[in-house]
Amino acid sequence: MAVDSGLTHTSVPVRLSRRAEWTRKQAIGFLMQQAVENPGVISLAAGLVDRDSLPVEETRSAVEVLLGDDERARDALQYGTTAGAERLRSLLVEHLANLEGCCPTELGIDTNSLILTNGSQQLLSLVGQVLLNPGDICLVASPTYFVFLGTVQGLDARSVPVATDEDGMQMDALEKELQRLQDAGELERVKLIYLVSDYENPSGFRLSSERRAAVVEIARRWSKRQRIFVLEDAAYRELCYDVPRLPSVWSFDPSCETVILAQTFSKSFSPGLRVGYGVLPKELIEPICDRKGNEDFGSSNFNQHLIATVLGQGRYAEHIRLICNSYRIKRDAMLAAADRYFADIPGVNWVHPHGGLYVWMTLPISVETGFESPLFERATKTEQVMYVPGELCYAGPAEERPRHQMRLSFGVQSPSGIEQGMQRLARAVRAVI
Amino acid sequence: MAVDSGLTHTSVPVRLSRRAEWTRKQAIGFLMQQAVENPGVISLAAGLVDRDSLPVEETRSAVEVLLGDDERARDALQYGTTAGAERLRSLLVEHLANLEGCCPTELGIDTNSLILTNGSQQLLSLVGQVLLNPGDICLVASPTYFVFLGTVQGLDARSVPVATDEDGMQMDALEKELQRLQDAGELERVKLIYLVSDYENPSGFRLSSERRAAVVEIARRWSKRQRIFVLEDAAYRELCYDVPRLPSVWSFDPSCETVILAQTFSKSFSPGLRVGYGVLPKELIEPICDRKGNEDFGSSNFNQHLIATVLGQGRYAEHIRLICNSYRIKRDAMLAAADRYFADIPGVNWVHPHGGLYVWMTLPISVETGFESPLFERATKTEQVMYVPGELCYAGPAEERPRHQMRLSFGVQSPSGIEQGMQRLARAVRAVI
Repeated sequence: MAVDSGLTHTSVPVRLSRRAEWTRKQAIGFLMQQAVENPGVISLAAGLVDRDSLPVEETRSAVEVLLGDDERARDALQYGTTAGAERLRSLLVEHLANLEGCCPTELGIDTNSLILTNGSQQLLSLVGQVLLNPGDICLVASPTYFVFLGTVQGLDARSVPVATDEDGMQMDALEKELQRLQDAGELERVKLIYLVSDYENPSGFRLSSERRAAVVEIARRWSKRQRIFVLEDAAYRELCYDVPRLPSVWSFDPSCETVILAQTFSKSFSPGLRVGYGVLPKELIEPICDRKGNEDFGSSNFNQHLIATVLGQGRYAEHIRLICNSYRIKRDAMLAAADRYFADIPGVNWVHPHGGLYVWMTLPISVETGFESPLFERATKTEQVMYVPGELCYAGPAEERPRHQMRLSFGVQSPSGIEQGMQRLARAVRAVI
Repeated sequence: MAVDSGLTHTSVPVRLSRRAEWTRKQAIGFLMQQAVENPGVISLAAGLVDRDSLPVEETRSAVEVLLGDDERARDALQYGTTAGAERLRSLLVEHLANLEGCCPTELGIDTNSLILTNGSQQLLSLVGQVLLNPGDICLVASPTYFVFLGTVQGLDARSVPVATDEDGMQMDALEKELQRLQDAGELERVKLIYLVSDYENPSGFRLSSERRAAVVEIARRWSKRQRIFVLEDAAYRELCYDVPRLPSVWSFDPSCETVILAQTFSKSFSPGLRVGYGVLPKELIEPICDRKGNEDFGSSNFNQHLIATVLGQGRYAEHIRLICNSYRIKRDAMLAAADRYFADIPGVNWVHPHGGLYVWMTLPISVETGFESPLFERATKTEQVMYVPGELCYAGPAEERPRHQMRLSFGVQSPSGIEQGMQRLARAVRAVI
């Protein structure tokens, strides 16, 4: 009798690359799975943006213009270039000048310094790819953006934490760390200093003006055998609610040789379009373009033309005013709820952010917040509320990472959802304390 | 007197990663630069699609529906997931079933097997990233898609050429190459067999039905210590002009463990939207999603919803009929011009493709076509016509690559532009012969 060999076929093992082994699932995946499995949950974890203020009307109006003329429509529907639509890059030079409060000519760059990417995340990844060998070092704020920590780990490079306070990364701590690395013979492995200059994710801290100038000077001074770049992630730059904006770290580098500036329209306009951009020191333009050429040879030309049309229509500034107002109300709702429900829990404190999307809360040191902790279980299962465990946001040895903090996002929920979520979370905290 | 130290500051050298050093500029960059520097040139080089048949009306209509409802619009303007919009992935299962001529349930996959990428190029890059270590081997048709050769080189992996004829990659040559690699102790480095199954870029060859079944069987049989995957690039699958379509290589792998299928809407709808997709064997789903999570955590959700709306409106099939008709006319124009201007040049012959965008032309062996050749100079400078040198499309040692071929695209030019371009090119060939 014939045997159906198909049924007995044993699969030969898949041998993945080292790169794949270094690449861990981003924690965001676990959080999204939790959200799916617990549909009644109020998520203070998701880094999504406010749904109600998404620019439906602005997009409609821009698309109407873009597709209203056949030739213009075809320009947008055809392939673009790897670096991105010249039309948008040109408008971005003006946009940057506007943010820095100067004339476009004073910026000292032209469109060739700009590359358009899939959100700013792709730029962060490309910078890592072209600079970091396995074992190389990136200095980061502590805490910092956890997705970027995953990106560095995916390259088998090392993130080294630098102490941080309400004015952002501490410059004396940065110097001390560089000295320590030099003493250990590792200064040549340092390629990058990464920081979220405005309203660091998760802490909400903003780098002070003095430190903006200082970090450029320090990066230059410690660039001995090789250039140390500052990677400035300014994703939240335009989400600034009740203080004047600051010039970027990049603006303190007039020769454009030290700072890589990463920005995006994901937070300020629409994450669904995935239009981010970077301003690159000249030696990085070609390597990053070439790397992007290998990875996808260009982001969506259509979306780049769409954003260009939005900027050209002059409705962008008004949209920013609108969303800043909306986020300010939500931030205030979260801070008020924190006062209401957490103020009388001993040992709890939180940051009052002037921008961004997050409130960073510290619990008593004995109250762990991680995925395996009683609090996370209690919060997600019983109280139906979710947060991002603070320990995800730390580089350095696992045993040295603080485990008693939480990132709370006010981006997605309505003010009443925020109020309810904070009430539930406080109940969970009280239950495990 | 104070010295302006800014003027004497010597920049510290930038030390790039090995990855960046492996990544060469894609030849496409040089070609585009040539086009810019020679604006009067007729490009038979560009792999762009036909401008006149870009789906302006279809996009307008889909956008109107997508943005016509506020909730639907917000779904599209918000972040999506790393794997891509469930709505589109679900429609793609139906679309694939339609292409294979079976019921969706017969495919043996669900939406989890599908990942949406920035064009299919990003999928090719991700597959390379998660499988290829430096020194690993990918077997490729000869000639094959030159951008993919760059992607493999960017990983410091090796592309090994396999002889090819009008029915695509030769299976006996593939076996012989695998045997040779085994004898050399290198079989364990073989991770991939890459082929463009329909109308290989640049040759226009289509893999025959028999070879589609055979390549899956061979990949399995030679998967001894590790899985050897077949990476089927089906970018031109729907651009099929005067023969019946064939089922994919992937359809010959019902257990879905050997073939990775890469497809895209770039050629069939709009490259400006950059919506490509892959069907993955189950062991690769998580590694590829995780890698994409590191690189950009998801492609444009808006564009995915836009393509889903197009598919949902049922206008896609009609658009395919329209563009196939348009490309068929242009292909015929190119073949007629080849007959008219090249038939009496001794030693010149060309392939008659039944789909895709390219005519592959072979000149007398003494007539080199590369960027440095007299022909390229004559063609671009004097005759103002451009082609892709065939040598770019070969893997293997440089000295073994044929140097007397050209890839001629009929995608971009009008029939009269094609006629004129071919006339100019023939003059250039005659001038250097």
